[in-house]
Amino acid sequence: MQVKNAVIGQSGGPTAAINATLSGVVRGLKKSNKVHTIYGMLNGIEGFLKENFCNLSQLLDSEENHVCLEKTPSSALGSCRYKIPMETSEKEEDKEVYCKIFEILDKYNIGYFFYIGGNDSMDTIRKLSAHAEKIGSDIKFVGVPKTIDNDLACTDHTPGYGSAAKFVATTMSEMIRDTSVYKLKAVTIVEVMGRDAGWLTAAAGLPALASEGPDLVYLPEVPFDVDEFIEDVKNLIEKKPNIIIAVSEGIRDKNGKYISELTATGKTDAFGHKMLSGTGRTIEGYVKDRIGCKARTVELSLLQRCAAHIASKTDIDESVRIGSFAADLALSGESGCMASFVRGEGSDYSCTCAKAPLDNVANVVKKVPREFINEKGNNVTKECLEYLAPFIKGESIPEFKNGLPVQFVIK
Amino acid sequence: MQVKNAVIGQSGGPTAAINATLSGVVRGLKKSNKVHTIYGMLNGIEGFLKENFCNLSQLLDSEENHVCLEKTPSSALGSCRYKIPMETSEKEEDKEVYCKIFEILDKYNIGYFFYIGGNDSMDTIRKLSAHAEKIGSDIKFVGVPKTIDNDLACTDHTPGYGSAAKFVATTMSEMIRDTSVYKLKAVTIVEVMGRDAGWLTAAAGLPALASEGPDLVYLPEVPFDVDEFIEDVKNLIEKKPNIIIAVSEGIRDKNGKYISELTATGKTDAFGHKMLSGTGRTIEGYVKDRIGCKARTVELSLLQRCAAHIASKTDIDESVRIGSFAADLALSGESGCMASFVRGEGSDYSCTCAKAPLDNVANVVKKVPREFINEKGNNVTKECLEYLAPFIKGESIPEFKNGLPVQFVIK
Repeated sequence: MQVKNAVIGQSGGPTAAINATLSGVVRGLKKSNKVHTIYGMLNGIEGFLKENFCNLSQLLDSEENHVCLEKTPSSALGSCRYKIPMETSEKEEDKEVYCKIFEILDKYNIGYFFYIGGNDSMDTIRKLSAHAEKIGSDIKFVGVPKTIDNDLACTDHTPGYGSAAKFVATTMSEMIRDTSVYKLKAVTIVEVMGRDAGWLTAAAGLPALASEGPDLVYLPEVPFDVDEFIEDVKNLIEKKPNIIIAVSEGIRDKNGKYISELTATGKTDAFGHKMLSGTGRTIEGYVKDRIGCKARTVELSLLQRCAAHIASKTDIDESVRIGSFAADLALSGESGCMASFVRGEGSDYSCTCAKAPLDNVANVVKKVPREFINEKGNNVTKECLEYLAPFIKGESIPEFKNGLPVQFVIK
Repeated sequence: MQVKNAVIGQSGGPTAAINATLSGVVRGLKKSNKVHTIYGMLNGIEGFLKENFCNLSQLLDSEENHVCLEKTPSSALGSCRYKIPMETSEKEEDKEVYCKIFEILDKYNIGYFFYIGGNDSMDTIRKLSAHAEKIGSDIKFVGVPKTIDNDLACTDHTPGYGSAAKFVATTMSEMIRDTSVYKLKAVTIVEVMGRDAGWLTAAAGLPALASEGPDLVYLPEVPFDVDEFIEDVKNLIEKKPNIIIAVSEGIRDKNGKYISELTATGKTDAFGHKMLSGTGRTIEGYVKDRIGCKARTVELSLLQRCAAHIASKTDIDESVRIGSFAADLALSGESGCMASFVRGEGSDYSCTCAKAPLDNVANVVKKVPREFINEKGNNVTKECLEYLAPFIKGESIPEFKNGLPVQFVIK
């Protein structure tokens, strides 16, 4: 039996669960006697090309370190946004990139290559495995998905989504308490990440299953109509003083134009540049202008993708599991594929891992189905919330020392 | 022995610990046989004037309910921004307010009046107890402080601060992980609440005690110089690609002008306080314009005052304790005073409750001492962080059901 080394990289925007998947891949590889050293590429394929590696076999030498890594947010290995050229390119410099990658793979005696990331990363896996096939290399290339957006095709849901959804839903339930204290008419707009798909914004509706949710929820899947929005807010604020609204950063009008691009307020900053407001602040402006009541915007911003202190236990456990499953795939000889989730049938939630093809992943955005959104397009349905609820179940609380979470940091 | 009723109100901006104090007052009153019914005024003194009461004796009828309330953020009784007139006012309508208040107190046979809030609330207690003395009423008026800003005089620190500080410090440590993944030069500015005092922004520095903290920390206590700031960022970004900065919303230039006003017009609230937004985005503009690198702003916004899911156990425990102590004060005949914290001497943290006078509370802002800030005024000292560290110790995690925190809601 031939013993080979393995290399793992992380790419794209970080999540609270991407390190759990990294730990899972290492856990899976460690079980096999086919693997000698497990390398981590620092800053993805960009670091790989510079041979910037760390030794994960050494760094993850205890159960304690594995657990600490699994509860540390963001990409411990660093990330990059580098897109490798088309494998069919005839350009000299493009061909050189492939030569270089396979030279390095040879030099480090790599037999198994893993890339944890979004659709660009899955595209990298597809290209490298296609090239390997072309040149007769038997190196195995396997991708593992991650994204807080939950918009990848070929998997029921994505690692990282559940934890982001739990942060959004939890803080939404807390903000509903916060905004309810005054009798003054006020509109609070909460802007949630998600340029093309509304999965994360839909999760803001989850408190409705327990008690009360946001009054209005707007996803990018339905065209946003400013007049209807103002009408909805006007009607609601007649009945209760505090309105809270979840809105996706990616909502667009019926012509496909982003709402954040609609207003030219004429305001300029100190340097004379036109001030570009976000989606939340744009509709806040409409509320102030057309209704005249108090309005404010809360942008959940970076916190929604790194709040590991309130990660979903379901998500973290599944993220470890899919990493380990990806290792199994490569070790059993699979290549050019992605590890994915399959949700079990029936009302009790269950989830298994499976092998998925890569062809459909790279350029497809999985959207929230229309039937998960109410007819008016201003909230999600109970069916949608019940579908999402299992993803945020359980709390993955990190260890705290002196009041702060203990983190696994690779220097 | 005369048995009387009690009434408790909450006022000002909510915190993650203000309900713990409410629960504490009720716990303290329940221990006495001098108290019959404990009322809650809905929406503070404004609701009191409309006789909008709930029955806290009934609502808090179990240990389970007490604990649930203690872990629920925001003011369960609602709040108000109503400021009662000066007790020395000779205006008819002002005198009427006092008449009405004492009429209602008589009608409900109130012997003990508690108000949990910031300096405006303590001012209300001072005015009402002065009026009681003037008219020979023996009703006891006791205030209990709360504010995430930690800027009240006459108490070592304030209930609510520790939990807000813990959220700020925890998410700062998570954002440091998030922003470290790319090699691209980028500046992340995190805007923290605190109009006049920098206590909460200082807490953003706490991750430095464990591993790494933000690169720069700017408090309102030191005049902010745009040129020096740009110089600091320029120097830092030569050495490492990702710079993360904590900045108080209330930073001012050497002439006392808010930095956010350098580019926009400020609005004022009902009390004439400047309403601030956009400090982070203002200095983000300077970074983009003068350095030309990527820059973005994260406003922690509402989350820092309502994130009960990551409240400080020290803060929640102390907040219950100070409420209970306030009850003891009133029951032992004290009036026109505030319950306060006294920090023990020595390196091991300890904290006891004490009676504090109200005269100095209302119009004094307790600032971060200059020696807690480094000479350049662009970070806090280790001594400052060690002083703050005990406030965020321990986690008060609420009960979760189906992935979301269980909350105590008074309808």
